[in-house]
Order: sequence, then structure tokens, then C-alpha cells
Amino acid sequence: MSDSAQAEKIAEKIIDGKAFAAGLRERVGAAVAKLNAEHGLTPGLAVVLVGEDPASQVYVRNKAKQTKEAGMASFEHRLPDTTSQEELLALVKQLNEDPSVHGILVQLPLPKQIDSAAVLDTIDPAKDVDGFHVINAGRLATGQDALVPCTPLGCLMLLKDRLGDLSGKHAVVLGRSNIVGKPMAQLLLGANCTVTIAHSRTKDLPAECRRADILVAAVGRPEMVRGDWIAPGATVIDVGINRIEGADGKNRLVGDVAFEEAVKVAGAITPVPGGVGPMTIACLLANTLTAACRAKGLPAPEL
Amino acid sequence: MSDSAQAEKIAEKIIDGKAFAAGLRERVGAAVAKLNAEHGLTPGLAVVLVGEDPASQVYVRNKAKQTKEAGMASFEHRLPDTTSQEELLALVKQLNEDPSVHGILVQLPLPKQIDSAAVLDTIDPAKDVDGFHVINAGRLATGQDALVPCTPLGCLMLLKDRLGDLSGKHAVVLGRSNIVGKPMAQLLLGANCTVTIAHSRTKDLPAECRRADILVAAVGRPEMVRGDWIAPGATVIDVGINRIEGADGKNRLVGDVAFEEAVKVAGAITPVPGGVGPMTIACLLANTLTAACRAKGLPAPEL
Repeated sequence: MSDSAQAEKIAEKIIDGKAFAAGLRERVGAAVAKLNAEHGLTPGLAVVLVGEDPASQVYVRNKAKQTKEAGMASFEHRLPDTTSQEELLALVKQLNEDPSVHGILVQLPLPKQIDSAAVLDTIDPAKDVDGFHVINAGRLATGQDALVPCTPLGCLMLLKDRLGDLSGKHAVVLGRSNIVGKPMAQLLLGANCTVTIAHSRTKDLPAECRRADILVAAVGRPEMVRGDWIAPGATVIDVGINRIEGADGKNRLVGDVAFEEAVKVAGAITPVPGGVGPMTIACLLANTLTAACRAKGLPAPEL
Repeated sequence: MSDSAQAEKIAEKIIDGKAFAAGLRERVGAAVAKLNAEHGLTPGLAVVLVGEDPASQVYVRNKAKQTKEAGMASFEHRLPDTTSQEELLALVKQLNEDPSVHGILVQLPLPKQIDSAAVLDTIDPAKDVDGFHVINAGRLATGQDALVPCTPLGCLMLLKDRLGDLSGKHAVVLGRSNIVGKPMAQLLLGANCTVTIAHSRTKDLPAECRRADILVAAVGRPEMVRGDWIAPGATVIDVGINRIEGADGKNRLVGDVAFEEAVKVAGAITPVPGGVGPMTIACLLANTLTAACRAKGLPAPEL
């Protein structure tokens, strides 16, 4: 095969999360415009940032920007890092009562004096667009309508877009965190996959991964999944975002999958960056739209 | 091997749930007596039966009998099958408020005019000894202290008793119901197993099952799992209780596993009856004890 044919073949394998997320944001924007025209409803997202964490500031800025671009109302609440738990809970309760706010996101991590679990469980589950409330976890676990954590929801969308019906496929989820691995497994089960959850205690991880039609890596270990862990033709979703020092001494981002090796074997694969990452905020907007529709007793639009 | 040696080998493989459940009930009884002596606390279980379903009447009678035998208080509420949802919800709310009641169980199925989900979600999650409330499902799904559905809890106890540490074992759960399959998967994951959830859409179920160190069958299909679905030496937990007509025209109980074939291959296996079945009420008592201890701010005893 010529070099250019080879390059083309690899390009076809890449799942372009950045492009898909842009399309999703457009569809959310169109649905918001329709909701506004037909029902006078503008979905509103409140984002609460406590303290000065630089990464959190970037995230919050991006969320606000994309919220406004989708035609939604964005409410930003910035509190000093000396904020007490009582003060934060009071704000959350006020946002719970505010009818113009349909989604509430409290940016993590929170300062040490604040119990994150107490804050997350104070958010009205109907406004919990991060999907971290115990009631949303329970709804997802029992197959009811839930607000689902944004990252696994984004992964599911990419998979359905690439593969169509997932029924009967063997999915292996590597990692069992509450915000990615476990809800990812629930979503894949809901899509009728046979689901295996593998983790640090799993014996012979490579062999387990090689059995996957769909492999979702969410362990936070740079390039742990090698090319020979992947079945020929499998679809690989790489949730990891790890900063490592390259040979040139510069920092670069890599996933949990050794991309250069994996892309030769896989049928399709998300790159890092530009794969799962951009889906997270787009799904946050989708969740806010869903929450607004449900609050108004309207069906959530298909996105 | 002689016939008697063969019979002895098979006897060693059988996981005697009836005997284990009797021991568990004794340990619960001892813990109740200690709780009573040291803290003046008598755990109380309220069971609500609506209508005249004969099977439900038998269950409720057995639950009340075993509750009293363990030294707990038993409160029975029998309502006519014309009971309205409002009347049932009013009773549940009254039991939620009653400090002598630590566990509430509403026997299913309920008459048609009543929305079971609404009733189950009205039970105080701290008193939800069936573990069916969405908050308990969410706590289990996110690794928090939960009240766990009795049948999978019983299966886990039998497994730990037979195998000790389950870490790293490959468990296959056949079936994905909210009351057995899904919570069973969560419990096995919590015990550090690699967990596969297989179901009616799984391709090549026999091959999937053959990969299991631990196989839990919870599908409600008589003798579906054959001997050649089981890896030599695997531990098999049969949750099925199916009534079928035998060759002699009489009804008999069989599990989801073809026992006679399976016992030759498996390392250990629960029979039907006398395996998982007796564990369910024993675990209900254990959950009631746990709920009573937590209500009083005491640690739940190890059972």
C-alpha cells in the first residue's frame, strides 16, 4: 500500500469527536431556538466556581461561552476559596428554587472545608446536569430516565454514530470510577451490549481487552493499552487525558491508549486530544436542554 | 471411583444454602440479643400485604415467623385488595415515622390500581430493607453504604463463604433484572471481581459462561444453563426457582441450571431448592438489623 493510501486508511479509522461535538452543539442550538419560539422557554445553566484553580477557571469559561453560543442563559457564580459549606449550600438551594435555572453545575474540586458529596446531593436531581446525584445514579442503574454523566454519555453517542445498533456487541470497560467507568457500563448494558468491567485487579488485562468489540479505556494511565491488547477491527474509545513529557522535553497530551500502535489494529479509534474531550461540554448542554424540557413537561428532543 | 466415593465428591460440591441461612439467622439473633441488652434496642420489621395472593401470604407468614425467632419485633399489616394507592401511601408514611419500625417491606406484586414504583420510592431509604428504593440503587452503584436487595446479598455471602477472597475472579452474571442481576454485578465488582453481565442479546452465551470462575444464573428459564456451559471447577450460583412438570406428571422445582449435568463439572454449586432460596429471608433479617443499628448510630455487626 502506498504511503498516501495508508494515511487515508488511518484517517478513516479516526473518530472525530471535535467535529461530532460541534454538530451536537449545533443541534442543541437549533432545539433551543425551537423551544424558545414555540414555548417561550430559554434553558438556563448555572455554573458555580469556588476558588481560583486555574484549570477550573478555563473549564468554567468554556462552559459559559458554549452555553451562550447555543442560545441558552448562562449564570456564573464565583465564590472565594474561603467560602463555607453553609454558604455554598445556601447558593445551591437558591438555584434549586430559581425557575430560570434548569441545570446546576458545581465545578470540582472544591476547597477542603467543603464536603463535595453533601453539595452534590443538595442539588435538585432534576437540575443535576452533571449526573452525579445519587438519585440519578440510581435511576441509571435501574433503567429509568436519568440525567447521565456527560463523559460516558458522549462516548455512547460516538459509538452509536460510528457503529449504529450496539446490540449483542461485547463491550469491555476498563476502569470503574463513578463518573466514567460505572455509568459507561450501565449505558452500554442499556444499549444491549454484553458488558465486562475490568480494572486493576483483573487477571490478564490484555486478554480481557482483546475480547472486546468495543473497548472503553478510562483508567488515567498514559498509554497503558497497547496495540496487542486490541482485537483487529475493534472500536476503541479513549477517555484518558494524561499530560506527559515528550522526548523533546515538551509536555504533550496522551490518552490511556498507545494511539500509534492501536490505530493500526483497531477498526475505529478516538484520538487524544480531539476525541472524547470535546464531547463533555457538548453533552452538558444536551443535558441542560433535556432538564429544561422535562421541567416544562415536554419531551426532550432527539439529538 | 466407587459409587459411594462419587456420591461423596458430589456432596462436597453442594453449597448448602439452607444450612448457611440457618447459621446466619442464628448470628442475627445473637446480635439482636446483644443490641437489646447493651442498647435497649429491638429491631422491628413491618411487612405490608395488600390482597389475598396465596404465594404472598406464605412468604409474609414465613417472614413474620423468622423475624420473631430472631428476637425482632414483627408488625404485620394486611389490607384488602381494594386498597387505594393513597391509603397504602398513608400507611407507608406512618411506618416511616414510627421509631419502633426499622425496616419496611411492601410485599409485591401489588393490585393493579396501585403504582408499585411510587410506593417503593415513598419508603424511607433508611428503612428500605428490600433495597429497591432508587436511592439505595444509587448508593450501591456508587460504592456507598446501601441497603442491598436480599437475594444478591445472599448470593455474595454464599460465594465468600465458599471461596474466601473473590478479588480478581472472573464473574459472569446471567440476567440483568433490577432486583438480582444488576445489583449482583455491583456487589461482585465491589468485591474486586472482573464482572461480565450477559443476557438474552449476548452472542454465544455458552462460550461467555464457560469463561466464568463464578457463574450466577438469574434468568428464570428452567435448566437453561447446561453442563457444557460451565468451566471445570467453576462456582455456580443458581438463582432460578422454576416450577415444571416432571416425567411423572408431578410438579417439581428446578433452577436456571441443569443441576445433574452441572454438578459433574462445577467445583461448587447451589441446589434448587435449598440453595439461594433460604438466603433471601435470612438477608432480610440481616438488613433489618443493619437498618436498626444505623438508625441508632451504631456500627452494623459483622455477620
